[in-house]
Amino acid sequence: MKLVRYGRPGKEKPGLIDEEGKLRDLSGVIDDIGALQLSDKALAKLAKIKEASLPLVRGNPRFGVPIAQVGKIIGLGLNYSDHAKEAGMPIPKEPIIFMKAITSLSGPDDDVVLPKGSKKADWEVELGVVIGTQAKYVSVKDALLHVAGYCVVNDLSEREFQLERGPQWDKGKGCDTFGPVGPWLVTRDEVMNPQRLDLYLDVNGERMQGGSTRTMIFSVAQIVSYLSQFMTLMPGDIICTGTPPGVGMAMQPPRYLQPGDQITLGIAGLGEQQQAVVAHRK
Amino acid sequence: MKLVRYGRPGKEKPGLIDEEGKLRDLSGVIDDIGALQLSDKALAKLAKIKEASLPLVRGNPRFGVPIAQVGKIIGLGLNYSDHAKEAGMPIPKEPIIFMKAITSLSGPDDDVVLPKGSKKADWEVELGVVIGTQAKYVSVKDALLHVAGYCVVNDLSEREFQLERGPQWDKGKGCDTFGPVGPWLVTRDEVMNPQRLDLYLDVNGERMQGGSTRTMIFSVAQIVSYLSQFMTLMPGDIICTGTPPGVGMAMQPPRYLQPGDQITLGIAGLGEQQQAVVAHRK
Repeated sequence: MKLVRYGRPGKEKPGLIDEEGKLRDLSGVIDDIGALQLSDKALAKLAKIKEASLPLVRGNPRFGVPIAQVGKIIGLGLNYSDHAKEAGMPIPKEPIIFMKAITSLSGPDDDVVLPKGSKKADWEVELGVVIGTQAKYVSVKDALLHVAGYCVVNDLSEREFQLERGPQWDKGKGCDTFGPVGPWLVTRDEVMNPQRLDLYLDVNGERMQGGSTRTMIFSVAQIVSYLSQFMTLMPGDIICTGTPPGVGMAMQPPRYLQPGDQITLGIAGLGEQQQAVVAHRK
Repeated sequence: MKLVRYGRPGKEKPGLIDEEGKLRDLSGVIDDIGALQLSDKALAKLAKIKEASLPLVRGNPRFGVPIAQVGKIIGLGLNYSDHAKEAGMPIPKEPIIFMKAITSLSGPDDDVVLPKGSKKADWEVELGVVIGTQAKYVSVKDALLHVAGYCVVNDLSEREFQLERGPQWDKGKGCDTFGPVGPWLVTRDEVMNPQRLDLYLDVNGERMQGGSTRTMIFSVAQIVSYLSQFMTLMPGDIICTGTPPGVGMAMQPPRYLQPGDQITLGIAGLGEQQQAVVAHRK
């Protein structure tokens, strides 16, 4: 299933994208798409519904983050061998993890607002992993059983805030609107192999990032297992699994986001995001 | 007011500590102590209630985290000049910030569970600041108006996970039970000056940390204003404002928490926490 939340910010309703690509309303069946709807059992129940019985939604409503009540957003640094190379960094021996503030969450096509004083805002297309059932000390073998599904995430990063203003990255990772997620939460059963997904990101129509989850250093299963050694993963938690090569910071000279830029990014089978970059509004 | 949440984990009810130090039930008045109850207006309404009209709670129930639905926990590193000195680190030019996973939240007297493989778990008594109203780009002058109140936090940290397993600290800061908060949320009006509070922490009755918020490098007002430049602070967000000298890591030789240890920590006027350290349970 391709699950979505659509409507005005804060007022999103649950829906799904049917086999013809049409948006259908799920609000008669479930209240929202949150922790209670992400278990295998709850998703199996949802999958039994005949799509044709769900009301079609008219118009082209905004999409929100496809998961309600996200508890934490955990990010991985330098998780693609080809990106570590472009950044001139050694391949990490174990995952580097940081956290994004949940106030950074944003709909997939919402504007990216540059924070006051931002000069080095950068893009990062990433495979998002959404936890479906509580995971603590899980093995690599069992890890994917705790995953509800996958989504596109733009792990936007202000490089000056992240790297030049203190040794910790979170300052540049958690700015408001720096976490567009969606458009869809694609359930696990529809993603044959999370390590064979092509990712891309364009700025103003020019291809910046291109890659495949094939070059991840730590696989999704390894990441989920690894993180669960340090903290309990809860339904609705989102893991941003790192970015392939092509970030602005690594260009010669570096290139950062400016008001007026248009970002388009996507992952095969998981949909596409489109963001306009705007200056901070008073 | 001294607001509390009491009862079994996940089933806490709202309450308050009256002038005689007795626990009274607030569940007839408010559903919980969360974002909706933390604004000045909501708190003023609560303050008008005659304490004697609230039912006394019998027995000695467990205290939970005094705030429900915490969205983010933001920590500051090296924010006491005397602690920076003991750690052998230079005084930071601006706040160093990291995030604690919300799954680390724990009642003030709940057990601290050492994660599997933990050899270097350490203590950190800290002044916790609870946001009452949304704050973005607020000035230092206005910052405290966005604070609902203050509480004691033990910002437990696994030093090997934090410092030796990747350059980012969050891995060692967000373990389950590593964020005891409470017992009370003391509203802002009862804390005359947040920069004149004495803090202490004992392990097995031996004084380890002693200090005063007077030696903070960045004041509470500066911190709230600073953080609001990077992300929107929401009602219920908790800021851990850094720890005074006396952490285990800085001792010669270093001393870390062992199963069986008893931690007692508190801040003048904000109450005391007592935790038993236990090994990970299967």
